[in-house]
Amino acid sequence: MDHFMKAAYEEARRGLEEGGIPIGSALVHRGVILGRGHNRRVQLGSAVLHGEMDALENAGRHEASVYRESVLYTTLSPCPMCSGAILLYGIPKVVIGENRTFQGDEALLRQRGVELEILQDPQCIALMEAFIAASPELWHEDIGQV
Amino acid sequence: MDHFMKAAYEEARRGLEEGGIPIGSALVHRGVILGRGHNRRVQLGSAVLHGEMDALENAGRHEASVYRESVLYTTLSPCPMCSGAILLYGIPKVVIGENRTFQGDEALLRQRGVELEILQDPQCIALMEAFIAASPELWHEDIGQV
Repeated sequence: MDHFMKAAYEEARRGLEEGGIPIGSALVHRGVILGRGHNRRVQLGSAVLHGEMDALENAGRHEASVYRESVLYTTLSPCPMCSGAILLYGIPKVVIGENRTFQGDEALLRQRGVELEILQDPQCIALMEAFIAASPELWHEDIGQV
Repeated sequence: MDHFMKAAYEEARRGLEEGGIPIGSALVHRGVILGRGHNRRVQLGSAVLHGEMDALENAGRHEASVYRESVLYTTLSPCPMCSGAILLYGIPKVVIGENRTFQGDEALLRQRGVELEILQDPQCIALMEAFIAASPELWHEDIGQV
């Protein structure tokens, strides 16, 4: 796990320790982390702060040119909302910890020219597998499934 | 303008009064507004709280079944991020104030089975036209354009 995915994974772990959904993310611009974050559904009662969204939010406001030179790291394949945020800001590359436990809108991202690197990292997989087994209802709420 | 688009429009006007980007939204479940909100980029330094996202956030956490019986009202055509949120939660219908000043990811929404009703409301158009003319840089930042 490289430095940036480790930051995303640490965020995911922090989310779990807070009683939340263990998905973390970091927005990296030219080798510098602009923002990192984790899913806040439980902690803030949030319907929009998935890990990727929290990282974007914590990174603050930027001009389009910054996003277009950035890479988004996330422990889990990005859902449709987070994929849409990646497309809105024209982020050209996403490094994904794993897509075994959930596959988001990867086809759309690729179709729109976003480069995806999928690590299938054993720690990311183990974290989500344990969470989904322990809290299936919370997980289904987070991904908009009955 | 019906009751719910009026709520979205009032939110947009409130955003303008706060010095922000005048886009508003309301999430409506079986005729009841669950949440309403407006773009908070300027007010909160937010990269993710577009009008639609703010309405979803203010509506709070819900099970998938609630979203699937809801209609999202928004004064402006939803950008890719907000379109992604609509897809994540399976919101079946979006009523759009106008798409003259900006057209979001309507093709993707329709392709995924979301019903769109576009009003081309003169007040919504006038509000955005005046804002874009006055603050083109802020507007470009909000939609991820250089």
